[in-house]
Parts: sequence; structure tokens; C-alpha cells
Amino acid sequence: MARTINIAIAGLGTVGAETYRIITEESDFLKARSSANFNVVAVSAKSKDKKRDVDLTGVEWIADCRDIADIDNIDVVIELVGGSEGVAKDLVEKAITNGKSVITANKALVATHGNNIGELVAKHDVMFGYEAAVAGGIPIIKTIREGLASNRLSKIYGILNGTCNYILSVMRETGQEFEDILADAQRLGYAESDPSFDVDGVDAAHKLAILSAIAFQTPINFSGVYVEGIRLISPIDIDFATELGYRIKLLGIGELLGNGLQQRVRPCLVPVNIPIAQVEDVFNAVAAEAEGLGTSLSYGRGAGAGPTSSAVLSDLLDFANNRRTSFLGTADSELVVRPIQELQKLSGSYYLRLQVYDRPGVLADLTAVFRDKGVSVEALLQRGRNPDGTVPVVLTTHETSEEAIQKSVAEFEKLENVVEKPCILPIENFAG
Amino acid sequence: MARTINIAIAGLGTVGAETYRIITEESDFLKARSSANFNVVAVSAKSKDKKRDVDLTGVEWIADCRDIADIDNIDVVIELVGGSEGVAKDLVEKAITNGKSVITANKALVATHGNNIGELVAKHDVMFGYEAAVAGGIPIIKTIREGLASNRLSKIYGILNGTCNYILSVMRETGQEFEDILADAQRLGYAESDPSFDVDGVDAAHKLAILSAIAFQTPINFSGVYVEGIRLISPIDIDFATELGYRIKLLGIGELLGNGLQQRVRPCLVPVNIPIAQVEDVFNAVAAEAEGLGTSLSYGRGAGAGPTSSAVLSDLLDFANNRRTSFLGTADSELVVRPIQELQKLSGSYYLRLQVYDRPGVLADLTAVFRDKGVSVEALLQRGRNPDGTVPVVLTTHETSEEAIQKSVAEFEKLENVVEKPCILPIENFAG
Repeated sequence: MARTINIAIAGLGTVGAETYRIITEESDFLKARSSANFNVVAVSAKSKDKKRDVDLTGVEWIADCRDIADIDNIDVVIELVGGSEGVAKDLVEKAITNGKSVITANKALVATHGNNIGELVAKHDVMFGYEAAVAGGIPIIKTIREGLASNRLSKIYGILNGTCNYILSVMRETGQEFEDILADAQRLGYAESDPSFDVDGVDAAHKLAILSAIAFQTPINFSGVYVEGIRLISPIDIDFATELGYRIKLLGIGELLGNGLQQRVRPCLVPVNIPIAQVEDVFNAVAAEAEGLGTSLSYGRGAGAGPTSSAVLSDLLDFANNRRTSFLGTADSELVVRPIQELQKLSGSYYLRLQVYDRPGVLADLTAVFRDKGVSVEALLQRGRNPDGTVPVVLTTHETSEEAIQKSVAEFEKLENVVEKPCILPIENFAG
Repeated sequence: MARTINIAIAGLGTVGAETYRIITEESDFLKARSSANFNVVAVSAKSKDKKRDVDLTGVEWIADCRDIADIDNIDVVIELVGGSEGVAKDLVEKAITNGKSVITANKALVATHGNNIGELVAKHDVMFGYEAAVAGGIPIIKTIREGLASNRLSKIYGILNGTCNYILSVMRETGQEFEDILADAQRLGYAESDPSFDVDGVDAAHKLAILSAIAFQTPINFSGVYVEGIRLISPIDIDFATELGYRIKLLGIGELLGNGLQQRVRPCLVPVNIPIAQVEDVFNAVAAEAEGLGTSLSYGRGAGAGPTSSAVLSDLLDFANNRRTSFLGTADSELVVRPIQELQKLSGSYYLRLQVYDRPGVLADLTAVFRDKGVSVEALLQRGRNPDGTVPVVLTTHETSEEAIQKSVAEFEKLENVVEKPCILPIENFAG
């Protein structure tokens, strides 16, 4: 006889409603893939009266979602409330403590409190599924935690925020400024009214911290992520990048440097002819590298009702099929605390754009700084003069150190002919 | 106390030797990801005396790999012998019948006898892992069978054969002919001495049949795959495709058409600016599409010791973690036998290259055929005359039916000015 799994859903936004719809309308399909019956017993959301496209007849409405943790017959709590603190955290911790399994899309919660949650999960021997926390339409948690689990990964990187990728794509296609595209995206509902989580890189950093921990067998270290957003990218940079054979992408990159861990979210130049450069609009992509394996990359929609509910439901099917994996894919006792390596430890080539007054000697001043810091110039491009008498100058470098670049930039900023803060973008040449 | 898993490996080529090396040298790493000890008890290969880079001290050598199935204390048999018939089939069936779990990289065996093996696996309640049978460096079986399991997929497609993709990539980069590149690839060990499994599309068809069955909840139907290889592609086609904004790729495509299943392996034109077009050299990629989900694509190395052993070992870690999935991800009783839809049921736009004598009226003859068959021409390109007086003419069409194209081609072949068999390539415009 088929087992029945009793479920509660906290949060009935687009993802919650779609998850509910599929569990109720596609019950035969889900049963064929799990030999289980799924039964939504209770739901909770901020407003009971809000119009929703789902029929909640016969489902218990819980006013305070935290009370779900106390309902005896619930096996799995699907938490779609969001936020690293507050009721979502309370609900998740209480549900686990009460022996219930939890499935969540809450990247902020996992990135911030994941290590404590992982301990609770092990103690109470429940399942904690968070596939939906990173790149919904790509089963990347499963890919890294199970599919590539035998590999000692050396690097992971990806386009982890669809809003930023959308803005950069539209910038390239239309030449519009960042602020204008953001305003349009907000009007269309692609970007939040407070966009800072997205455009300042925080959301990508949450996801990177989760992926790094799995990839490198180490506790989650969100505060150890260097974070830079895309506000400083101008259409000029997009044009120069295109001219030089690159695309600009906001990448999250985690890698082992010696025995330490380097994690950064930062706009980068990537060669136009590698797959990640072709990831456009709201799409996400994540790549993992290991010796032997080479590069394994996954691509898909990162957000929205369909992709995110797909991830939630794959966790639910894992639960129903008794497919369990430890929180980070590595036994807790075997996790290694890795020292965080600062950005200054990196080396590579770089793209710099400076806005300078078009006067004699200005290029000599710039190149002299690089000479003094031991930085070798690969290309120098200068464009036509602006009405204010300034011109953009772009320099790309051969392999050098992040430290030499930072020191050079500090010198550039002292030059009287340099106006504005220089835009510095690393050039990332990934292995195949 | 950690559980010990006893393993036998049949086949010690590059993949078998690398699998053995990792199990023995990386035992601590694998244990951290499974809480199990792995112990290779027995191995078997054609020649005991062949020089191998692994230390087999203390491991029992089994002359006839089929005898492995009778060794009592073995939990998992790793079958890397290959071939759809013969000893590999005997070993796998006997091992399962004797209650042992099996992990294999044998796509020919799974594509040809998978349905029977699936029944045996269910009857004897063992695990049968075949992640390595399709695109080793991409955990695509896991992705489709577990990660995307809640989606009703409508289409899967991919670059499933690294040798073909390598040849097409080199053709584009160097302008060399197919035969010359193949000969080089054989010399370098990238292509088999008998290349027909690869270049005629059979290998890709094996993989497609496996993926289709999982994706569409249907028994494996390898004989229902339409198969066409890349021998007819000439450097001229690559040039024309580039000029028109496309790449030529050998794709395996499976899709639901009405209640039926359409499966084909065939060279196609794909727009240059979508991710699958950027998959070059020996890389593989597989995409799945569903309403709601959109496209989810995975990319990586498809063959070689590192990628293939990664897949074998991910199955081994699933076994050690008790993560079980039914053979095709759907309960056997819920599999639906789907009628095969013939190629003629397809519609789309097409690329045709004809070699014609450059005489007055030839273009009028060609376009009249298309008019009579109701095919609308999108573009017509003609190139300079060859020394033999022939010219290549390329026609691309608007949306039409495969049937109209086939009928048109039959008429083209009757025209006295048409020399050679026309090259017909569908143009595949995939959804995002």
C-alpha cells in the first residue's frame, strides 16, 4: 500500500501556490515517481483573504506559520516565507526539533544559519532539503552534493542572480544605463522594489556560500564572501568588453587557494566563446571544476514559480523515496574549517576603465604607474572626447596580482587628470 | 561503526583503472561522503599481464568476469567490459539474479536490454546504477531521474557523442574534410579504429534512448530511434551555416508528439547564440524542457577516465548512502508504452544544400519544386563554380513539414542538373 505523506506549506506566494497546485493536481504523476500519496494538510500565509488561483478547500489554515511545527501528523514542512530571521527561522528550527523534515527555498536562512540548522538536522535525524535555495531550475545542489560527490572540486563559479544578468544583458542589447533598466525591471516585476539584495550581489553571495560549503567540505561561511555588485558598470564598459571579445557577467566564484577558501561575487569579463558567456537574460548557470573531471556546467532559469517549485518538489520526491544526503554532503565530523583567503591573494589579468582629462601626458602618467607596480599592459583603448573634456581610457593587463592592481588604482586616483573612481574588472579565463 | 562495501571491478581499461585508483587512494574522501569503507575484493580483465598503473596486490584476479557473480561476499559489481551482448550481459544478469547491485558504463547494454534488466532489478531488489552510460562528466541521469522528476518534460536534446562534436568543431576551425579529421582523431586515440558507432550516430542513439525513457516514463525503445550520422557534412555546409548564423551539431532529440514518442539523432543547424551552439570539441551537453521549468541544460566532458569514473563513483556513493531510485525513475507499473512517431510527422524549417550544374534555369527548376510542394523559401545562397562546372546552392525554408521536404528532395534528385545526394539539415530553434 502506498505511503501517505502529510505536508504543510508556509507561504503562498507564486512559488507556494504553484507547489500546492502541482501537489494537488499532479498527484498521480508524483505518485508514479515515488509510490507515495501526497496530502497537503495545512497552509499558512500572511493574508488569508488575498485572491489566489488555488482551491484550498479542506486544508487547514494556520494563522501563525510557526504553529505548523506543532501539528502532530505533518511529515514535511515546506517553508516559502523567506528571510534569514524572524518567523521563517523560528518555524524551520521548531519543525526540525519536533522531528519534522523541512524543505525550503530560503537562501538567506541557509547561508546565514545553515550550520546550526545542519546540526539540528543531524541531531533529530530528519531531512532538510534546500535545492530551491540556489538556481531553482537547475538541480545544482543535487549535482554537486551527489552527482559530482567523488570529485575533489577545485573551483565553482556561476551566474547566480537573474536580475543582474538580465540588467547586464539588456545593457548590452540596448546601450541603456543601469538605472534606467533597473527602473523598467522593477515596473515589470523582474526586480524588487528594494533592489539592493540583487544588484549589490548579496543574493548571489548567499548562494555562493552554500555552494562553496558543499563543494569544499567546509562549514558555510557567508561572511567570508567578498561582495561587489553591478552598479558601477556602464554601457561604455559593455561596449569595450564586446570590442575586446568578452562579455561582462556578475559571477560568484569559490575556489581553494592553498588550504584556504576564496569566495567572491564580482562583475567579471569572460571570453565570449565559452558557454557561460552565452547565458543571457534571467538565466543562471553554475560550473564546477576538478582535475580529471574537467568542467561540468548546468544552466537554467534561476527563479520564478515553475523553476523554484520544480526544485521544491524534487526535494519532496527525494523525501518520499527515502533518498537522504547529509546536510552538506559530507559527514559533519569530516567538515574542514578553511581559512578565508583575501581578494589580494588572487592573480590574473584585469580590465580597467578610467575617465581622464584628454591632456598631453595623461597616458604616460597611467602607464608609468603600471610600470612602477610591475603590471604589464596588454591593450590600451581610448575613445572620443566627452563634452566635458574627459575621455574613457581602457587598459587590459597581462597576468598580475590583485594586490598590484589595487595599489595601481590607489595611485591612479591621486592623478589630477583622473576623474571618477576607476572601474576594475577581473578577466576570468576558465578551463574547459 | 562504518559499513564496509565489497566491490568487484570487471574491466580494467582506462576507466576501470581510474575507478580502482580512486577507490583505493581516496578512501578517506569517499568515506567522508558516505560513512562507508570501500574494499575492492576482486577484479577481472582480458589480459592479466598487461601493464597497468595500479597496484592490484591483495585483490583476487578472476579470469572469467562472469564468475564474479558467484563470489559470495561481493556487494557491488562494477561492469566496465562493454558491449550489448556477450560476457558483459551475462555478468550483469547473473550478478543481479544473485542479489548483487551493479554499476555500469555500458550504454549499448542498457539501451538494448535495459527493460529486461529493469525487471530483474525490481525482482531482486538490488541497485542498478548507469550514470556513466550517458555523458560521464554530466550527472544527467540523476538530473533527469531525480532533480527534474516533478516535471512533465516535453523535450530532451543534446550533444551526446564527443567524437562527432570534435570532428564538427575541427571542420569549422580548419576547413578540413571529414575523412581527414577522422583519420587524425583515430591516430590521436579520440576515435575508435572502427568509427561507425560514433560517426554514424549509433552511440548517440543508445544514449538518447536511455534519456527518453526516463524523461517520458516509457520503456526504452532503442529500435525506435531514427539515426543519421555526420558523414555527409562537408566543410561547405559548415561555412554556409556560419554565414547564416548557425552551427552544425549532431543532436539527439526526444520529444512527445501527441501521445507518441519521436526520437532522432541527426545533424542540425542551431542558432550560434544559444548555449548548446557553444559546446565545442569533445564536450557533451543535454537539455530538458518543460512548461513552467523552461530549459535546464547540463554541459561537460562525456568520455574519458576522469569523467566516466566520476559517474561510476557517484553511483557507488548513492549505493553507500542508500539512495535508491527505480530503474527509469517511474514505478514499472506506471510506465506508458508510447507509439513511435515517424520523422515525417515533424515540422520546422530546413537547410538544403544541392550540388548543381551552373546552367540557365537550374534555380527556376529548384524553386518550382518547392512551390509545387508548398515549401516557402527563406534564403537562397549560391557560391562560385567548381572546376567540374557544378556549384553549391543552399536553400533555407520557412516552417514546413518534414514530409514536404522529403518529397521535394525526391523531385530534386530527378532533375538532370542536380548532382550528388542533397544534404538536408533541420534548423532547430530551441525555446529558452
